[in-house]
Amino acid sequence: MKKVIHIFIVGTGKVGTQFLKLISEKSELKTENGDFIFKIAGIANHSRMLINHKGINPADWKLNLLKTGEPAIIKSFISRMQKTDLTNSIFLDCTDGDEIVKYYDVILRSIPIVTPNKSANSGTYQKYLALKKTVKRFKTDFRYSANVGVGLPSLDVINSLLSGGDRITSIEGLFSSTMNYLLDKLLITNKKFSELLKEAHDKGLTEPDPRNDLNGIDTARKILILAREAGYKIEMSDIEIENLVPPILRNINLLDKFYNSIKIADSKFDSLKKLAVKTKRKLVYSARLRNNKVSVGIEMVDSGHPFYSASSNEKVVLFYSEFYNENPLIIKGQSGGAKATASVLVSDILKTVG
Amino acid sequence: MKKVIHIFIVGTGKVGTQFLKLISEKSELKTENGDFIFKIAGIANHSRMLINHKGINPADWKLNLLKTGEPAIIKSFISRMQKTDLTNSIFLDCTDGDEIVKYYDVILRSIPIVTPNKSANSGTYQKYLALKKTVKRFKTDFRYSANVGVGLPSLDVINSLLSGGDRITSIEGLFSSTMNYLLDKLLITNKKFSELLKEAHDKGLTEPDPRNDLNGIDTARKILILAREAGYKIEMSDIEIENLVPPILRNINLLDKFYNSIKIADSKFDSLKKLAVKTKRKLVYSARLRNNKVSVGIEMVDSGHPFYSASSNEKVVLFYSEFYNENPLIIKGQSGGAKATASVLVSDILKTVG
Repeated sequence: MKKVIHIFIVGTGKVGTQFLKLISEKSELKTENGDFIFKIAGIANHSRMLINHKGINPADWKLNLLKTGEPAIIKSFISRMQKTDLTNSIFLDCTDGDEIVKYYDVILRSIPIVTPNKSANSGTYQKYLALKKTVKRFKTDFRYSANVGVGLPSLDVINSLLSGGDRITSIEGLFSSTMNYLLDKLLITNKKFSELLKEAHDKGLTEPDPRNDLNGIDTARKILILAREAGYKIEMSDIEIENLVPPILRNINLLDKFYNSIKIADSKFDSLKKLAVKTKRKLVYSARLRNNKVSVGIEMVDSGHPFYSASSNEKVVLFYSEFYNENPLIIKGQSGGAKATASVLVSDILKTVG
Repeated sequence: MKKVIHIFIVGTGKVGTQFLKLISEKSELKTENGDFIFKIAGIANHSRMLINHKGINPADWKLNLLKTGEPAIIKSFISRMQKTDLTNSIFLDCTDGDEIVKYYDVILRSIPIVTPNKSANSGTYQKYLALKKTVKRFKTDFRYSANVGVGLPSLDVINSLLSGGDRITSIEGLFSSTMNYLLDKLLITNKKFSELLKEAHDKGLTEPDPRNDLNGIDTARKILILAREAGYKIEMSDIEIENLVPPILRNINLLDKFYNSIKIADSKFDSLKKLAVKTKRKLVYSARLRNNKVSVGIEMVDSGHPFYSASSNEKVVLFYSEFYNENPLIIKGQSGGAKATASVLVSDILKTVG
């Protein structure tokens, strides 16, 4: 018997589009737990929405949404979704930011949620805990593997350690491919940091506004979520973040103006490079939970450190625990980008219904 | 409310003794899933056995077994265990070999099993599958995390990949600390293989009979179990094993005689070393599942390979899958020995009752 999974997707940006593409290419999946058929039962974005019990063709969603959809009102999308009462329904939040998150509690009362959106888990601890409680109370599921180091089974590893009675004492990780690409290049080329940043931006390796990479907030959110999953009650405001954007450039509106002035950061990176080369160390932008404190920033590691051999496109997470007290448990893998994220969403959906 | 876990342990060798020591030092455990009390409700070894509903003091088990125990008859130990009908009972098999394994099917009908013993999973595929079916049918649990790379959550990672719809295409691993210690030393010292082996033996780094390290069977069992967990129907006899014991030394009974003759293996290792040094590669004793075939033996890896930077006391497993198709998912950690094994057993027990 094939199980039909009914997906209600909100958000059709990069990740949402990639997910729909993936489903249109491969709508049936044989797994160890059985055979599954993916059906898109609803789509909404900031302008239009559409619900169709019988399924919306994911290859043709744009036209469908335009022709048979109606203006988007997220509240009514959710209430109609809940009224459909289809088996194996999943709410898939592919939006950014906080807007949809405020409905999670209501949604979870009847439908499990899968999302790459970090907002719910990186908001206040109280909100984080409240959602956990809702999930428990309604015996439902809320999965967000793509929140942290897309594709690495970090959350499953934490769960495996904790359910075995272990206590996680420290977590260290490399999460920002962009930052670690820049720091790598800084050491192996003769280019200045500002040049490398411009180059990376032109190659599409940075966020549209590269300050969203440089400010460390995304890395901080990831370690925050890992720390919370490991049992630490930590707020975003507790995290010491090394923001690599010089203070006077943080509020400039025009990107061109930012690029003209980012040269002022070069001298800092020049001296970092000098010290690293002299002491035969490598520069990484890392996140760490140590002694109940979380911090994010540039770190110099010597050749014995597991980060030393990591290439910039690899995500690495080290776990220290009562069991792994001297040497960490290391998980490492290369991934990221919208396509990998879409696969992780499929994986979370299958785990939810499986 | 504290949950009491009733443990029936068979086998009081290195691992069993270490487990009892661990429990005597820490009989209560607070975890994310609640608080647990470990009670030893039964102990048996090859000579004596004892069952006591109220619990046997694990610090004093030897005297207890001697004074109040009776001659061991494993069949009656099992039937009496089943009659106690205690909540949260666990059968913990700390023996080596096949003797207890033949009772697993009967035991699992009422009590879950935790074991570091690889015999059940590395026997015939039919037997492996039959146990899986029994576990499913009786909705019970059979856990054996310590079978493979003690402490690394390899089995949980496989499960995480499979339940997410991924398909594992290849597995590579370093499992033998002893072999990799010898190959490491071979490259960085001027000593011959035979000298290094004798030294390692004298330091207690090898099995009592080092041929049990050199023959590759233990490594083969580990990759066999991983491959089966990943969904491959493979028999031990399908595995191509590079046995490092020269054929004429395989049937010598006296260890002294073996050590006197193992020099004949040196020339092989000399030329391996020469080639490795010349090509700037490293020697490892690895296990691999590739293209549906499993093999175990010496491999030369260059500096780009994840095994290159692994130290000999680290276990490393690489997973290639549909998702991790270009670069593997890597898990890595240092562990092994009776103490670590005992901790993994505690972890498996908690996962079983948790």
